[in-house]
Amino acid sequence: MTDATTLTDAGWLSREEMDSARERLPILYVDAVPVRVDDHGVVTEIGLLLRAGEDGQIKRALVSGRVLYHERVRAALLRHLEKDLGPLALPRVPASPQPFTIAEYFPTPGVTPFHDPRQHAVSLAYVVPVEGDCEPQQDALELTWFTPDEARDPGVLAELANGQSHLLTQALAHLGV
Amino acid sequence: MTDATTLTDAGWLSREEMDSARERLPILYVDAVPVRVDDHGVVTEIGLLLRAGEDGQIKRALVSGRVLYHERVRAALLRHLEKDLGPLALPRVPASPQPFTIAEYFPTPGVTPFHDPRQHAVSLAYVVPVEGDCEPQQDALELTWFTPDEARDPGVLAELANGQSHLLTQALAHLGV
Amino acid sequence: MTDATTLTDAGWLSREEMDSARERLPILYVDAVPVRVDDHGVVTEIGLLLRAGEDGQIKRALVSGRVLYHERVRAALLRHLEKDLGPLALPRVPASPQPFTIAEYFPTPGVTPFHDPRQHAVSLAYVVPVEGDCEPQQDALELTWFTPDEARDPGVLAELANGQSHLLTQALAHLGV
Amino acid sequence: MTDATTLTDAGWLSREEMDSARERLPILYVDAVPVRVDDHGVVTEIGLLLRAGEDGQIKRALVSGRVLYHERVRAALLRHLEKDLGPLALPRVPASPQPFTIAEYFPTPGVTPFHDPRQHAVSLAYVVPVEGDCEPQQDALELTWFTPDEARDPGVLAELANGQSHLLTQALAHLGV
Repeated sequence: MTDATTLTDAGWLSREEMDSARERLPILYVDAVPVRVDDHGVVTEIGLLLRAGEDGQIKRALVSGRVLYHERVRAALLRHLEKDLGPLALPRVPASPQPFTIAEYFPTPGVTPFHDPRQHAVSLAYVVPVEGDCEPQQDALELTWFTPDEARDPGVLAELANGQSHLLTQALAHLGV
Repeated sequence: MTDATTLTDAGWLSREEMDSARERLPILYVDAVPVRVDDHGVVTEIGLLLRAGEDGQIKRALVSGRVLYHERVRAALLRHLEKDLGPLALPRVPASPQPFTIAEYFPTPGVTPFHDPRQHAVSLAYVVPVEGDCEPQQDALELTWFTPDEARDPGVLAELANGQSHLLTQALAHLGV
Repeated sequence: MTDATTLTDAGWLSREEMDSARERLPILYVDAVPVRVDDHGVVTEIGLLLRAGEDGQIKRALVSGRVLYHERVRAALLRHLEKDLGPLALPRVPASPQPFTIAEYFPTPGVTPFHDPRQHAVSLAYVVPVEGDCEPQQDALELTWFTPDEARDPGVLAELANGQSHLLTQALAHLGV
Repeated sequence: MTDATTLTDAGWLSREEMDSARERLPILYVDAVPVRVDDHGVVTEIGLLLRAGEDGQIKRALVSGRVLYHERVRAALLRHLEKDLGPLALPRVPASPQPFTIAEYFPTPGVTPFHDPRQHAVSLAYVVPVEGDCEPQQDALELTWFTPDEARDPGVLAELANGQSHLLTQALAHLGV
């Protein structure tokens, strides 16, 4: 039994059980938009991951992942940020639990701007300033920093999958940049 | 097969399957704080339900319930509001999907201010003005309107179960009343 | 002495005094984005005014105006909504005083996305569902309803002055449409 | 001419002019709630100043002050935080300009929970994590850190003037602690 299994305890699900749950319940996710801020708190850069999707396609992505059984939302945020950005990223998870928006990913395209062919996921979205050194880990190939204007570029937005371009646009609007 | 089963489709779970999921995944909920507003939009009254709990105890409660598979969050809000307040309540679900806070109900008491012995539930919380006539339905015995000052009274707060007194206090603070 | 003068009492300023204050203090404003919502609370249309500017140019605009001395922010919102949309618009001012963003209009272009050659104004921005009949009044020539997709069109956004296209984009993002 | 005068430029007002403006226009303020957070972003302590009021009474207070002409809201926040907490406090002004609430201070008591005998002030309220060493400056006599439960104590709340106890309660609710 691996550490991961021990940690999640009763929350551990076999691949088959998780697949079954995904067809029957909305799955709780978190989305994090990593940003660099200047000493006035103004966002200067947004970090986007480069990831190889299950279909082999390379896509840009936000930091995103499932909340586990008996896990606090802010612990899930930190776990996914560390998994994707490495242990030295020094993320500053917001003090308030209020997400700036929620993203409803539906298995059926077109219900909302968000789409996830595998499941119905509802994601709590946060902007997270990171102050340390980011080293993409695991299935994240690269982290690229974009200025707000670069991130808004239709070419960049088109590289985000599953409607995350919509979520990025919402984050930029929330940040006022 | 009942209509309810047809509607939720693959999302239908037997009692056993739902019990099993409740031990393994955080379950997505919505909480609604029903309010009356005056013509300036100022909250004048907060509606609290009187409910018989599973242990037979009578408790006050907010409108609360699960989000189903393939159901929009705002559809879940409307479904639970109609179930508890009746079909003529005319709830005004907020235009923005941003909840005013999230409530993390843990099966273990003390992890957060919120507690649910049956499950780990994460709830998106909204304030919902209702303009019509409210008729408590099903397991809701009564709906009582309280002014903000009455709702803040320690005696009233003590009648709310599972930490919903904390959520009500957060709603009042968010409303500035 | 006109009614308007009586109402604002000590808050009355001569044109000269107001001009002088505008060179020395940030002036408090409200911006309202009027919307139509369906019975699920989803925004279906955004209302934009057509206005003749001081330079004679016709521009689109949000509902916007100054908060007076001793006036509540929500009273200022209602006053400007009634002034621009008429007395039968039935605006639903939000129950929470939290604006979805603030817009800092600077007399110097480029400090923020917002610009006001006359003054430094800081505006509290709200989305306001309107349920009644809108009849543009006074210097508002027309009110036009746009779907979210139409409102996002670069051609429409270009018709908004002073950076209000930025504010409209922020409102759409906040609404998740 | 002092530096302060040079900095604010045309925004400089004589004491008489400021007194006159205070009787005729709402004055724009910022309120900051200084907090300590742990490495999960959870607020562990709230900082309250001890101040000698104009009437000689010692009162607790939040960091609060005016926004100057041609000053960004976040610059005003940083200026007042530095003035009260010293130059080594390392405040982390939020990346989003959205305040968690607004406080409307009226010269007439009872209009809102907030009262300021000198003026009608509208304040944008933010929670600001501070990471460095705080040294109260100028008219701030002392900075004391309270846990959320201590800060909520009626005895502590009673030491805050002008309705800032209400604002502190709103901040704690927004933070979910």
